[in-house]
Amino acid sequence: MGAIHASNLRRHPGLVLAAVSVSDPDRAARVAAELGAPVRPRWEDVVTDPSIDAVVVASPTEDHAAQVVAASLAGKDILCEKPVASDLESALRAVRAAREAGVLLHVGFQRRHDAAFAGLRDEVLAGRIGEPWLVRICSRDLEPPPAHFEGACGGLFVDMAIHDFDMARFVLGQEVVEISSYARVLVADRGEADADADADADVAITTLVFESGALGVIENCRQSSPGYDQRVEIHGRAGTLSVDNQPRHGLVHADSAGSHRQAWPHFFADRYTTAYAAELDAFVAEVRHRRGGPAPAGPPGVAATGDDAVRALELSFAADRSARQRQPVVLPLDRSLE
Amino acid sequence: MGAIHASNLRRHPGLVLAAVSVSDPDRAARVAAELGAPVRPRWEDVVTDPSIDAVVVASPTEDHAAQVVAASLAGKDILCEKPVASDLESALRAVRAAREAGVLLHVGFQRRHDAAFAGLRDEVLAGRIGEPWLVRICSRDLEPPPAHFEGACGGLFVDMAIHDFDMARFVLGQEVVEISSYARVLVADRGEADADADADADVAITTLVFESGALGVIENCRQSSPGYDQRVEIHGRAGTLSVDNQPRHGLVHADSAGSHRQAWPHFFADRYTTAYAAELDAFVAEVRHRRGGPAPAGPPGVAATGDDAVRALELSFAADRSARQRQPVVLPLDRSLE
Amino acid sequence: MGAIHASNLRRHPGLVLAAVSVSDPDRAARVAAELGAPVRPRWEDVVTDPSIDAVVVASPTEDHAAQVVAASLAGKDILCEKPVASDLESALRAVRAAREAGVLLHVGFQRRHDAAFAGLRDEVLAGRIGEPWLVRICSRDLEPPPAHFEGACGGLFVDMAIHDFDMARFVLGQEVVEISSYARVLVADRGEADADADADADVAITTLVFESGALGVIENCRQSSPGYDQRVEIHGRAGTLSVDNQPRHGLVHADSAGSHRQAWPHFFADRYTTAYAAELDAFVAEVRHRRGGPAPAGPPGVAATGDDAVRALELSFAADRSARQRQPVVLPLDRSLE
Amino acid sequence: MGAIHASNLRRHPGLVLAAVSVSDPDRAARVAAELGAPVRPRWEDVVTDPSIDAVVVASPTEDHAAQVVAASLAGKDILCEKPVASDLESALRAVRAAREAGVLLHVGFQRRHDAAFAGLRDEVLAGRIGEPWLVRICSRDLEPPPAHFEGACGGLFVDMAIHDFDMARFVLGQEVVEISSYARVLVADRGEADADADADADVAITTLVFESGALGVIENCRQSSPGYDQRVEIHGRAGTLSVDNQPRHGLVHADSAGSHRQAWPHFFADRYTTAYAAELDAFVAEVRHRRGGPAPAGPPGVAATGDDAVRALELSFAADRSARQRQPVVLPLDRSLE
Repeated sequence: MGAIHASNLRRHPGLVLAAVSVSDPDRAARVAAELGAPVRPRWEDVVTDPSIDAVVVASPTEDHAAQVVAASLAGKDILCEKPVASDLESALRAVRAAREAGVLLHVGFQRRHDAAFAGLRDEVLAGRIGEPWLVRICSRDLEPPPAHFEGACGGLFVDMAIHDFDMARFVLGQEVVEISSYARVLVADRGEADADADADADVAITTLVFESGALGVIENCRQSSPGYDQRVEIHGRAGTLSVDNQPRHGLVHADSAGSHRQAWPHFFADRYTTAYAAELDAFVAEVRHRRGGPAPAGPPGVAATGDDAVRALELSFAADRSARQRQPVVLPLDRSLE
Repeated sequence: MGAIHASNLRRHPGLVLAAVSVSDPDRAARVAAELGAPVRPRWEDVVTDPSIDAVVVASPTEDHAAQVVAASLAGKDILCEKPVASDLESALRAVRAAREAGVLLHVGFQRRHDAAFAGLRDEVLAGRIGEPWLVRICSRDLEPPPAHFEGACGGLFVDMAIHDFDMARFVLGQEVVEISSYARVLVADRGEADADADADADVAITTLVFESGALGVIENCRQSSPGYDQRVEIHGRAGTLSVDNQPRHGLVHADSAGSHRQAWPHFFADRYTTAYAAELDAFVAEVRHRRGGPAPAGPPGVAATGDDAVRALELSFAADRSARQRQPVVLPLDRSLE
Repeated sequence: MGAIHASNLRRHPGLVLAAVSVSDPDRAARVAAELGAPVRPRWEDVVTDPSIDAVVVASPTEDHAAQVVAASLAGKDILCEKPVASDLESALRAVRAAREAGVLLHVGFQRRHDAAFAGLRDEVLAGRIGEPWLVRICSRDLEPPPAHFEGACGGLFVDMAIHDFDMARFVLGQEVVEISSYARVLVADRGEADADADADADVAITTLVFESGALGVIENCRQSSPGYDQRVEIHGRAGTLSVDNQPRHGLVHADSAGSHRQAWPHFFADRYTTAYAAELDAFVAEVRHRRGGPAPAGPPGVAATGDDAVRALELSFAADRSARQRQPVVLPLDRSLE
Repeated sequence: MGAIHASNLRRHPGLVLAAVSVSDPDRAARVAAELGAPVRPRWEDVVTDPSIDAVVVASPTEDHAAQVVAASLAGKDILCEKPVASDLESALRAVRAAREAGVLLHVGFQRRHDAAFAGLRDEVLAGRIGEPWLVRICSRDLEPPPAHFEGACGGLFVDMAIHDFDMARFVLGQEVVEISSYARVLVADRGEADADADADADVAITTLVFESGALGVIENCRQSSPGYDQRVEIHGRAGTLSVDNQPRHGLVHADSAGSHRQAWPHFFADRYTTAYAAELDAFVAEVRHRRGGPAPAGPPGVAATGDDAVRALELSFAADRSARQRQPVVLPLDRSLE
């Protein structure tokens, strides 16, 4: 993720990538060459450097909260990769630190910056389909993450579905008041799964109830042979909006067996190339605006805030609890969210 | 439905529509002219007529079970519209009568005879997508039924979603072991809905757990401004199969606002024109086969049997119970299904 | 074609198929059984039978003109398969006979009754795309006709492209003033083609100039492995209309190689099933209207008249001449078309 | 075009944009800032600078040939925008100069680097559709160029259709042996067109005959309200390949009027963003390879050579001549192409 952000930063004339923090000395030289920026071993030196206006947090999840807090105290604007923390308490602490320091905090839910999903939300909020009744989000990865990551990442709901919980709130502009999840181990080898009581679920269906009574459903799967599968559909009184997967390019091959199109992009970095660039553009525009630049173009409320990040994380934990306890969970969870 | 079946019967050379039963004397003459067949006021006279081989039951739901029982006792082969009865006990009684009499009983789940859905099932059962993990069925009507019908028809799950429960079993070839439904009144006018405690839900999301652990979701809505919305998708280890809505015809209009296609068919009779014909063809072929004709072409197990009808009805009641009690329901319900 | 029309006739309550003419005594009994109508060996007896209102001419092309003349003289309304004759003079004579007798003459260009093509024409004539500039028609058969038919049918332009010339005039509502064709033998085996100087071209591109200056192009090919390929596109000042091929049904199979749809229908009888029924419906409605029935629904000018048939045939001959002489041909040809 | 290439150059780590030549002193400062590179008023100083390895020629067409000749004499590798010259003699002289100097000359037919068109060509050359029989290229601009440009640019065939002539040769891997064009003034106001005998045609249909006997057709139009329209289709013995226009993104809006997709990109810079980047990548890879770097990835023969440029220009002039003289033109024209 750091490499993606650095590459997108280069596209902004007048913006300087002042430093990159890489703790591993073996990787430092290579990163410096690739990103064309000086490398510092201690991230604390970066976030407190008075010559720096803003930081991008793309470190391992366990460091996010501490780095956001430190950057907030140092008065830096922050773009933090999701999740802000791996537990709700730390996430709340980080978000509060940013709020109290008055710094900008954007969280990396890059799908909000995808033109199709953003366009869908614009139409919903503009009333183009009237009152929304049903939301469907489908999110499937090409293949499961490596085993060592799977253990560390918090499971299907916290690692993967968190994007979908954020998407649900984003496109509907409403909070979720109840959640009910079913999760199963189907992709992983049965033998292993049986042997390992902690086996992470890899297929899930989650039902959401929104404030207005609208219903939502999220389908997740860790494996999708046709490629990375990312769809959203909203059905309302006056129409239906949908964003489907697009093939890599427009070539169609027709023969006696039928017609054949290219597969979808396989990985998030391909599917969301322009969304990541737009996410960074939105952050840079806001940072410049806070320093006297022009107001950012585009509709407000696209970039995910700290509060958005906390609520998505809360939904992830609620879904996980619902799946384990086999019963619906009412939101908000018992927390002191200000 | 009677008119649709009669019209499809005319397409079979050598087959005679011997009689139509119409109890209302005011409608008898008109129906006789339209269908080109003699009309008898009492259905009992039709089902016991020794010159008749087979009957099509397309009467109001409350008469189905008694007519199936009577026709079974008279040794007629039967094509009965869904549902076989409006309660599980009557349905079981009717199905048992047909089984004990050794007559053929097909039940009118016509979607099984749609070429796209049947093709999807063929590919699943042939293993083309490997082990299935997720099923999604979306089923939305153009607009709610007239109020007088709505009260009588048994509600969203028994009247409408019963087709989707049948479809879920059909395409996966598995039984459902657990069901969880959320239902809301969103389409109907809120004021009316609030005033009427019995208001029928018009939007629902139902989660299914299958024998194999595969998960399913069914989305239902009583109103869909783009037209009758009928989709199925199955995702498995080796691929994904989907049947989407098709526009009425292939005309595309492109202008500065984008490209525009025709709406989907608006009503079930348009969407399933060829499926109804194929359903009748399958019944006629089986009736003839039982009388010495050639074995029917096509894969076995397409037409819905009495047992299929009972199980779909059971799922409807279970979904309704889950939505009302706000908790999952385990299948089979307490019944003596042989 | 006779069987298709007879089957569609059965769908009209109150309409009687009074007689079918079959000259071959070996086929007579089978046809009588299949069509459920009496068979007469001499067509002259059918067209002069005073109890008959209308005739459908679906005989070999060489008999069309004489049968249309005879039926006109007998005062019958006529639906004649295309072409009306295999030479322009005979076609003119037949069309004049019908006109002078005051009988109805519809010619079997069934594509005009296809909902998508008819919808395209409606939009053009209603000005939805403004002034039309470019027309493209693509027409490819699944495979070449049997060799014995190929010799007899008049070649690529007279047998196959005649439908496309009619379509060009139909969708634009204009006459063609100049035509230029290129034709090649590419599908047939080269060795055979070289040996046979009369080898019929099997691939062609024809450019049309319309009265308004609009340009058109027709692509023809005798072989298309993906199926019967029938497309029309019109581009004008305010937009573009197109009719593309539709897969047999809506099933999509996606896997690691991409997404796959069904092939298109393979033959004209599948592609134009509903168009043939609509063609006959339009003829029956007009026949009934001339006998006191209600005015037919739908826009006027859809069914092809005798004049339409002559002009399509003339364009076929002009295209053939252009391809052979390797130069453009100006329309109308030297003829005494009234 | 210079800005596009400069922006794509920045994406190559280790590559330095050494100088930009801008003759207009008023624009020099602005360009220097935008492109982040020193500006020199005289292009002669750039092409002879010994520290420079390669040049990109993106100047007005009338300067191309002289600059290619000068750069060749100076031993620079060259990426030259199309056309290499506005007359065939100058183009030949430039191409010969590059060849004799042994420098690399790529010409800016960027569509060859579009993934969909390149994929189509790969499948054709790999024999996936067997022997090709028919090629169709459709190329329409959003709107006509400004009047002052229209006069200077050489007309529809030399300015616009030249890309399509190159595409025809590219995807088929064959030479064109005969060409026949029809061109009309339909988009421009009729009154003006009549008054101005030199009015440039804005709608054209061109038929091509290839070496193998395969036929091709190119449709051109200066205005397309749905957006920039760029399609290619190849039909052969074993199948059909096509590249259609893609909407800007995947959002679909369905309501009672049907389903609606986004418009296509409006301009070439949007449609070919990644193709321009790939074009530059291919040039850079080749330049580096000539200086000891690794062999470029990807299939050979994608980038347009000087010979490709001459042949496309020749086809443009032949098409223009055919349209004016209203007769086919045989290729090659009378020239001394080595």
